[in-house]
Amino acid sequence: MIGGIEAGGTKCVLAVGPEPGRIDAMHIVPTRSPDETIADILAWFASQPAVAAVGLATFGPVGLDRSRPDWGHILQTPKPGWSGFDFAGALEDKLGVPVAVETDVNAAALAEANADGSVSSLAYMTVGTGIGVGLLIDGRCVHGAAHPEMGHYRPRRPAGDNGFAGICPFHGDCLEGLASGPAIIARWGSRLSDLPPYHSAHGLIADYLAQTCHTLFAATSVEVIVVGGGVLATPALHDRIVARCMELDAGYFPGGNRHRIIAPRLDAGSGITGAMLLASGC
Amino acid sequence: MIGGIEAGGTKCVLAVGPEPGRIDAMHIVPTRSPDETIADILAWFASQPAVAAVGLATFGPVGLDRSRPDWGHILQTPKPGWSGFDFAGALEDKLGVPVAVETDVNAAALAEANADGSVSSLAYMTVGTGIGVGLLIDGRCVHGAAHPEMGHYRPRRPAGDNGFAGICPFHGDCLEGLASGPAIIARWGSRLSDLPPYHSAHGLIADYLAQTCHTLFAATSVEVIVVGGGVLATPALHDRIVARCMELDAGYFPGGNRHRIIAPRLDAGSGITGAMLLASGC
Repeated sequence: MIGGIEAGGTKCVLAVGPEPGRIDAMHIVPTRSPDETIADILAWFASQPAVAAVGLATFGPVGLDRSRPDWGHILQTPKPGWSGFDFAGALEDKLGVPVAVETDVNAAALAEANADGSVSSLAYMTVGTGIGVGLLIDGRCVHGAAHPEMGHYRPRRPAGDNGFAGICPFHGDCLEGLASGPAIIARWGSRLSDLPPYHSAHGLIADYLAQTCHTLFAATSVEVIVVGGGVLATPALHDRIVARCMELDAGYFPGGNRHRIIAPRLDAGSGITGAMLLASGC
Repeated sequence: MIGGIEAGGTKCVLAVGPEPGRIDAMHIVPTRSPDETIADILAWFASQPAVAAVGLATFGPVGLDRSRPDWGHILQTPKPGWSGFDFAGALEDKLGVPVAVETDVNAAALAEANADGSVSSLAYMTVGTGIGVGLLIDGRCVHGAAHPEMGHYRPRRPAGDNGFAGICPFHGDCLEGLASGPAIIARWGSRLSDLPPYHSAHGLIADYLAQTCHTLFAATSVEVIVVGGGVLATPALHDRIVARCMELDAGYFPGGNRHRIIAPRLDAGSGITGAMLLASGC
């Protein structure tokens, strides 16, 4: 048996099962302080059959380099109590099994690529409370110096789009500062899905997200970009992004129609499935 | 002995040597029609000791997937006669040895990473007649659906920078349309290095290129970005790019100072050294 943990900003999804695609039991605990959260996680795993390994797909920033002392630690974060917490170490120590760590979005990218056996390069973008992008190249999650942070790149502001400073505390009008759920509410006082179809917000958010897809194709040449998250529940948004991204490319990319923008195949299950995949690789 | 070919828009650099870092003989032929160019390449290799393999680092777009029928072919290009030409196939056929193919910038990325043994993720950007970016992740050149084309992403236009439409025939004001050598001449009637130090062009070009570095760090988390090419001969441009990129990050990236922007270690030799490295991997 293997275990998976998808640690998010407000809740942690826990799972056990005999293999990544088969989850026998699942449980959710709130994400509170590190000590309280670890205690809740341990209590649930203690009630389940013993696991041989655990995959941790966590909110970031997180240290992913096994050879560095900050491996498995949550790095500098505004989340109270979590900066510097040795998340993976605490789990390995208390559960007594190996723990594999990835960012939640890298793990989701792994799971989505796994769900489509023919794809070895994929970006997974979730647009909700924040904007996170995970990246898989040649079948492996990308780390580099740390891990991708595409939510904080700066898309072009379309002509006339200059009346909103953005809400990112670091960058103002980076992608997350412009197109995340809270940014949309800060700007228009409403969720995107509640604004009428003729509202200009729809075209603007689609433009930012399409630019992001275009930029990801340009930078990494990934075959597939999966776009999900709460904001994508807005009717027609997915199709607007696809159409606008094609306009931006103007038929140029040599990958042509081998570049695809799709919805998550695993719905909200990408993260926990990715965590189980990580565990199976231990 | 192994051979290398760096095929550029105006010339092809040819080399032979016993190993990638050691070149015994080098030669340059003009890039003319495919048939003329192949004839020139063959004539020179015939005058050299026999090689066991050849690495081809070529201008793009080029097919890089060995399993596809367009492997080693130059894809759709405005370059007369070259669209669809089976560049690698012609060389394998006539030279009778295996040929390994990469884009010129991917090969240069490989060579620059090899020159710094501790780096496994690196982007190589050259800013000259065009803007090309090669990408290496986990020690391997990135292909994905085809190969990266970061020269055609669309950086943000800074406030007030709206009087120039850009010169890219596909995208107008994409990166290459704004910041390549010909774009600078089209906009200001002069090379950047010939404009006085107080000219606003310096800050603007540095901003576009710094945005590109910031976006590459955000998308791929590479440890190193190498920035070279003719435009980078402009005094102080490198330092301006580094300073502006730090401003754009605002201390956010979890990779921190493990992200570096550097000049090429191999000067103009990255491409041909990369071609020799490709040959050695055959």
